[in-house]
Amino acid sequence: MSQDPHSLHQEIEELCATARTCYARGWVPATSGNFSVRWGSRIFITPTGLDKGALTPADLLEIDMEGHALAGRGRPSAETSLHTIIYRDRPAAHAIVHVHSIWNTLLSGKFAAIGHVRLTGYELLKGLSGVATHEHTERIPIIENTQEYSALAVHLGDVLRVNADAHGVLLSRHGLYTWGESVAEARRHLEALEFLFEVEGRQLFGQPS
Amino acid sequence: MSQDPHSLHQEIEELCATARTCYARGWVPATSGNFSVRWGSRIFITPTGLDKGALTPADLLEIDMEGHALAGRGRPSAETSLHTIIYRDRPAAHAIVHVHSIWNTLLSGKFAAIGHVRLTGYELLKGLSGVATHEHTERIPIIENTQEYSALAVHLGDVLRVNADAHGVLLSRHGLYTWGESVAEARRHLEALEFLFEVEGRQLFGQPS
Amino acid sequence: MSQDPHSLHQEIEELCATARTCYARGWVPATSGNFSVRWGSRIFITPTGLDKGALTPADLLEIDMEGHALAGRGRPSAETSLHTIIYRDRPAAHAIVHVHSIWNTLLSGKFAAIGHVRLTGYELLKGLSGVATHEHTERIPIIENTQEYSALAVHLGDVLRVNADAHGVLLSRHGLYTWGESVAEARRHLEALEFLFEVEGRQLFGQPS
Amino acid sequence: MSQDPHSLHQEIEELCATARTCYARGWVPATSGNFSVRWGSRIFITPTGLDKGALTPADLLEIDMEGHALAGRGRPSAETSLHTIIYRDRPAAHAIVHVHSIWNTLLSGKFAAIGHVRLTGYELLKGLSGVATHEHTERIPIIENTQEYSALAVHLGDVLRVNADAHGVLLSRHGLYTWGESVAEARRHLEALEFLFEVEGRQLFGQPS
Repeated sequence: MSQDPHSLHQEIEELCATARTCYARGWVPATSGNFSVRWGSRIFITPTGLDKGALTPADLLEIDMEGHALAGRGRPSAETSLHTIIYRDRPAAHAIVHVHSIWNTLLSGKFAAIGHVRLTGYELLKGLSGVATHEHTERIPIIENTQEYSALAVHLGDVLRVNADAHGVLLSRHGLYTWGESVAEARRHLEALEFLFEVEGRQLFGQPS
Repeated sequence: MSQDPHSLHQEIEELCATARTCYARGWVPATSGNFSVRWGSRIFITPTGLDKGALTPADLLEIDMEGHALAGRGRPSAETSLHTIIYRDRPAAHAIVHVHSIWNTLLSGKFAAIGHVRLTGYELLKGLSGVATHEHTERIPIIENTQEYSALAVHLGDVLRVNADAHGVLLSRHGLYTWGESVAEARRHLEALEFLFEVEGRQLFGQPS
Repeated sequence: MSQDPHSLHQEIEELCATARTCYARGWVPATSGNFSVRWGSRIFITPTGLDKGALTPADLLEIDMEGHALAGRGRPSAETSLHTIIYRDRPAAHAIVHVHSIWNTLLSGKFAAIGHVRLTGYELLKGLSGVATHEHTERIPIIENTQEYSALAVHLGDVLRVNADAHGVLLSRHGLYTWGESVAEARRHLEALEFLFEVEGRQLFGQPS
Repeated sequence: MSQDPHSLHQEIEELCATARTCYARGWVPATSGNFSVRWGSRIFITPTGLDKGALTPADLLEIDMEGHALAGRGRPSAETSLHTIIYRDRPAAHAIVHVHSIWNTLLSGKFAAIGHVRLTGYELLKGLSGVATHEHTERIPIIENTQEYSALAVHLGDVLRVNADAHGVLLSRHGLYTWGESVAEARRHLEALEFLFEVEGRQLFGQPS
C-alpha cells in the first residue's frame, strides 16, 4: 500500500509534477526518462518520446503488471519492462522514477567496471528509507547498458535480488532508477541520490579521464 | 513537411518558447543565438540584436529561401545565410536552433584542431533522430569561426555534405547549430547534444589549459 | 528583539519563503534542512520529514525554549535541540537556517580534520553582520557529524562559546547552521557563506581526493 | 542620450527587472551589488543593504552627479562614488550594473597581480559595444579591492582613462562593474562578460590553487 493516504488521482498528479521538476533541473533532457505509479495491479506510466517538461495525467498509459496496455494513447517505452520487474521484485514500491543526469551519467560510466557506486559518511544518506545514520554504506549497483531490453529486464531482476537493500540501480552512461512506497518517497530517494552523486562527482572529475 | 501535424502558428509559438527557455538556461546570452522555422519556401527567423528572453512571434522576420526579406521589422542577422544553407542541404529540416553555451564554447575550442567532437557510448545519443543505440558514434564537425559570412556559408555547405549523418555543426569558440523536422525535434537534438557536451566537458576541464 | 520592525506573522511568512527558495536552489534536498524563528520565548520551527519546497506557516511547530511542543501538528526534528542551543548561546539570534548544499558538504568534509573553514579576503564577507572589511577572517567551526543529538547539542554549545564571533557552524559532510537577528539577516548570512563556500570549493575540487 | 527611445520610467523598470534577474542567477547574494540609471544630470541608484531579489522603482535613491541625495528613502551605498566616477569618465554611459559572481570573484583574484583579465577569440566578444569580431582582445582591468572608497574612486577614474576601450572594471575578489548607453546595453555587456569569465574559469580552476 502507498505510504501516504493519497488517492490514485493525487499520486498521478504528483508524479507528473515530479516529472516536470526533473525536466526543469535538466535530469530528463531530449524526452528521456520515464515515471510510473502502481495502484494495486495497475501501473500508470509515461509513454515513449514525450517531453517531460509538459507532462499531464492524460499523457500516461495504463498497463497491467505484465506490461500489457489497458488504456491510454501513446506507445509504451522500451523500458516499460524495467518498471514491471522493479514492481515485481520490490513489492513495497508504488512509484518509480528514472532520470538521466550529468552526474549519474558520469559516475555510472566511471564505476561501471567496479559494478557499483559506493556512498558513505554523508548525512543525506538518511534521505533513504530505513537509513538512520550517516555511517550507512549505500551501494548502488551498475548494470552495463544495452538495447536488449528483455535480457536487461532479467539482469535487472537478478541485480535487485542480490542487492536487496539497494535504493536504486544505475545503467552505465545511461541513468538512475529509484523507487519508493509513494511518489513522495521515490522523489526523496531521487533527490538524495542525485545530491550524493554530485558530491562524489565534484571530487572525482575535472581532469582528463 | 513538419514531423508534427502542427500549424505554422503553433510551430512559431513553439520556436519562441524554445528561445525563451534557452535564454533562461544561459545558452543565448547578450542577444546571441538565433532561431528559425521553415514552412514551404518561407522562413521565419529571429532578427539581429534581440534579447531572446522576451521573444514573441511578432519579432520574427519572414524571408525566402535565398534570404531576401518578405515581411517583418528588424534587421536580418549576419548568420541568416547559415540558416538558408542548412535548409538547402538538409531538406528534411524545418527548424534550426543556434546557441552559445559554456560547454559548446569550451569543446568547440578544445577540439577545433581535430575538427570534430566525438560522442559515443551514451544512452542519450538516442535523442538524435535515427539513432537506435548508445553504441552509435556521433561526430559533430567543427568549423573555424570567422566573420566572413559568405565564405562561411559555402564552407558550411561543404561540411554538411561531407558529414551527411551529423545532427549538428559547431563553430569554434562560437556555438552550435542543430536542426530537426519540427521545432520539437530541433529542441530534442539541442537538449541531447548540450547534455553530452557537458558530460564530456566535465571529464576534460578543470585544470590549466 | 528582531532587527526589522516585522510582526511575527511577517517573520514566519519570510521564513517559509526562504525555505522554499532554498529548496529551489537545491540546498535542502530530500526533505533535509530545517528553519526556525524565535519570538520572545516561543520558537516556530519546521517539523521532521517535510518537503521544504512547499512549506507554509501552517506546517510549523511551536515549541518553547527547552524544545517542548506548544502547538502544531507534525513530529519535531531530531535537530530541534540544536536550534534551542543556538538561541540560548546567541541571544541576539531570532532566526536560524540549516541547509545541506553541495559545497558546504564538500568543504565540511575536506576540512573536518582541521576543524574549521577559513574565509578571508573576499568583499562578500561584508554580508556578515558586524564585518566591515574584506580583510576580515571568518572561521566557521566544523563539528564532527553524529547521530547522538544530546551529546551534539552540548558540543555545539561549547563550540558557540569558544567561537564567539563565528556567524555559522558546519557539521561535517552534513550541512551549515547560520542565524541572524531576523529572517532577513539569517538569509543574508546564508547567501554570503554559501557563495564563499562555492568560491573556495571551485579552487579546491576537481581532482581525485 | 540613451540608445533606446525609452522613457526614464521604462529605464528604471528595466533596471529593477535586471537586478531581480541577477539575484535569481546568484550574482548579487546577501544584498550585494548595485545598479543605477543616469537621466541627464540625475542618477537613480540602489541604496545600501537592500535585497536585490525584490527591487522595485520606489526603492531607488535619486542623486546628482556629485552623489548628493535629491530624493528617496534609504542610505546611499559606499560605492555610490564609483558610479558617479564612471558616469563622469564614460559620458556615453547611462546605466551601470555591479555584480558579485562566483566566476568574476575567482578570476579577479587569480589575475589581480597581472592587473587584468584578457578575453580573446570568442564570438561572444561581439556582445560588447563596438566589437565586430571574435579576434578582438578585451582587457578588463583589475583594481585591488579596498574599503577606502574615496581613494578607490580616484583610482577608478585613472583606470578608466588609461583603459579607454575597456567595457568593464573588476575589483579583486569583489566584483564587476560594467555599463552601457542604456539598461539593455549594460545588461548585454554583463551577460557577455560573465559568460566569458565562466568559460575562462572552467579552463583554469579545479585543482589546488
